[in-house]
Amino acid sequence: VVDGSALWLDLMETAKFGGTPKGGICRLALSEEDARVREWFTRTCEALGCVVSYDSMGNQFARKAGEEDGLAPIMIGSHLDTQPTGGKFDGILGVMGGIAVLRALRDAGLTTRHPIEIVNWTNEEGARFTPPMLASGVFGGVFTQEFAQSRTDRAGVKLGEALDKIGYSGEETCGAHPAAAYFELHIEQGPVLEAEKRTIGVVQGVQGMRWYSVTVKGHDAHAGTTPMTMRSDALWAAARMIDEVHQVVMDHAPDGLGTVGIIECLPSSSNVVPGEVSFTVDLRHPSDGVLAKMEREFRQRMERLASLCGVEMEITPTWVSAAVHFDPLCVECVRDSAHALGYSMRDIVSGAGHDAVYVAKVAPTAMIFVPCWKGISHNEAESAEPEDAKAGANVLLHAVLAADAR
Amino acid sequence: VVDGSALWLDLMETAKFGGTPKGGICRLALSEEDARVREWFTRTCEALGCVVSYDSMGNQFARKAGEEDGLAPIMIGSHLDTQPTGGKFDGILGVMGGIAVLRALRDAGLTTRHPIEIVNWTNEEGARFTPPMLASGVFGGVFTQEFAQSRTDRAGVKLGEALDKIGYSGEETCGAHPAAAYFELHIEQGPVLEAEKRTIGVVQGVQGMRWYSVTVKGHDAHAGTTPMTMRSDALWAAARMIDEVHQVVMDHAPDGLGTVGIIECLPSSSNVVPGEVSFTVDLRHPSDGVLAKMEREFRQRMERLASLCGVEMEITPTWVSAAVHFDPLCVECVRDSAHALGYSMRDIVSGAGHDAVYVAKVAPTAMIFVPCWKGISHNEAESAEPEDAKAGANVLLHAVLAADAR
Ligand SMILES: NC(=O)NCCC(=O)O
Ligand SMILES: NC(=O)NCCC(=O)O
Repeated sequence: VVDGSALWLDLMETAKFGGTPKGGICRLALSEEDARVREWFTRTCEALGCVVSYDSMGNQFARKAGEEDGLAPIMIGSHLDTQPTGGKFDGILGVMGGIAVLRALRDAGLTTRHPIEIVNWTNEEGARFTPPMLASGVFGGVFTQEFAQSRTDRAGVKLGEALDKIGYSGEETCGAHPAAAYFELHIEQGPVLEAEKRTIGVVQGVQGMRWYSVTVKGHDAHAGTTPMTMRSDALWAAARMIDEVHQVVMDHAPDGLGTVGIIECLPSSSNVVPGEVSFTVDLRHPSDGVLAKMEREFRQRMERLASLCGVEMEITPTWVSAAVHFDPLCVECVRDSAHALGYSMRDIVSGAGHDAVYVAKVAPTAMIFVPCWKGISHNEAESAEPEDAKAGANVLLHAVLAADAR
Repeated sequence: VVDGSALWLDLMETAKFGGTPKGGICRLALSEEDARVREWFTRTCEALGCVVSYDSMGNQFARKAGEEDGLAPIMIGSHLDTQPTGGKFDGILGVMGGIAVLRALRDAGLTTRHPIEIVNWTNEEGARFTPPMLASGVFGGVFTQEFAQSRTDRAGVKLGEALDKIGYSGEETCGAHPAAAYFELHIEQGPVLEAEKRTIGVVQGVQGMRWYSVTVKGHDAHAGTTPMTMRSDALWAAARMIDEVHQVVMDHAPDGLGTVGIIECLPSSSNVVPGEVSFTVDLRHPSDGVLAKMEREFRQRMERLASLCGVEMEITPTWVSAAVHFDPLCVECVRDSAHALGYSMRDIVSGAGHDAVYVAKVAPTAMIFVPCWKGISHNEAESAEPEDAKAGANVLLHAVLAADAR
């Protein structure tokens, strides 16, 4: 079994890189804080006998040799970047869990047949550079490296430039190197496991998600002299559209999700009727068919509101990630391990995207969930119990051993 | 009569300071562009025989001596700052009109009894530092200088610091120096004169206006895992509130106005349900009584929506400007001049605030409106006809002469 205290210490120690007063982490991808946690990762994995490298997307690979070095490695990974007001577990637990597995193998004097690789994927959150899971997406062949490196943050900095700045643009071209299996441990980020008092979620797959950028154009006008009926108010129209995104979900798929997370408004002056507004839309549903229906309804209602409010409107899709079903054999490794270790568990579908979504395109993949406090995530208050973190890492260890034995 | 071509040249020449590709002006108060137009103002007025000074709020006064220098001056003024996407006439016409009056007096070899002062008021727009009419407000005794100088722009720069930076923090303490009368020429910024094909608006007063800042607090949450019914979504709530600001006006006072011009949203990430949103509200009505009723209704509906959407909400009033009625004698000077010059005209109430609102607190005041294209203002497309600008300046000249003769 893994050393739960060492795992918890790793989580708490790295939480200092970008730690916020409210107990969360602000560690945007490829920031200075990200550079510091990357150094910690390299140092720690080297001390555990790994060779650490990084590829042209800045993905870090810590490789521990196996008995049969001709075999493809078993990969364990997740991400160390966070949201602007992120927590201490989202992504981080999956990387620290991998380190806990290495430590457990060392302490038990075990060497696996396959090499083991712990991976820290670049820019999973999609908070600094959209879309999310960008570097695992290049690894999985979903995005080209040119596309990924040319993504810009809000200050106009390209991902490629940000990689160079912190010195993580590696020689090895990012792309699938063969993997025998990929396992990712993660907090659930939802309320189910906690509510049902279960320790382990055996993740079956990930729901479908689609992102859009909506631009609304009206006319700048004087707030004190332009009669209400003569306005073309881009913000009023956008406000009605944002409410309607909510309504589309409630009316058509209450088990789906619709979120507007970013809004920008020009010229942004108290006494000017706004002439231009843009906002993001994130639609999700476990069924690709229902998601497609949600999109159709969303588009129709936006069109209707645009003409009702007398503005122009354009919807640009910015990301599509179809529903994913994980590898049955890898999922079995997870289920069997949780069972053998005596943890309460249930099957579950992930609401959030994960690097595993794109790695699954090129390697047999599965995920392990553990509960988090009230299901809260993407929030500085995100929290998890040490015993649950340990349980998750134990299942990870045994799932890896099971896959290794096959 | 005034020289219409010289007036137009002045308007076009100064439009270069902060001129935008779309033909508007971005000349925020106390910016580098503002500094350059201030230098132009000083040079031009000195060439017309004025002594130019500025006070501790950066208000510029160009004083042309009269025959009886013991008399209080007749003031003519407006502002040279603009909105971020402002036009070439809002405020600027009133200052250039004053210069046109000086030029006409010189060309006619006339000296007035009273001294004449052309004033360029600092930060009228309220776009960089809120509230609007800040420096004329200090002059009129409505704001203290401490309040005004401590106002900050969005980068956190204090108005006092911005004054120092461009070297316009004068020795003379800002505050009423006696004025025999104040006249302000302005584009209507609304559609009435153009629609009725009238050249001159005899401004009776200015409608009441109230500004608020609304803060909505919910909880940051993951867009992919937080069920719709478990969210406390500050942006969804704000969207419904913004629509409701519109509805309050439509239901209670269709001749009133309600505008949301600025919205800010945190943490501003596509896959995070926003935990905090703030927005501005601008309510206006010609009757203070109706305006008070609008405010009551607005507050009630915001409260109702906050509890309906499960968020916290706070409304902070940031500016109140009561309805204003101009000095009957000064208004008569305007009406008589327009009549004598044979221009078509009508009485009108201003929808926009003007420096005249606050100067009226300490001096007999009136305003002159001329038409602008489609009533469009606070927009780069703002436009006016050379003949109308000239007509307005002519009325200004004759109103000043009428006041001077009394
Ligand atoms: N796990 C996680 O929070 N990923 C971010 C991508 C998403 O929005 O689901
Ligand atoms: N004239 C003008 O646009 N003033 C700005 C103040 C207001 O919002 O009315």
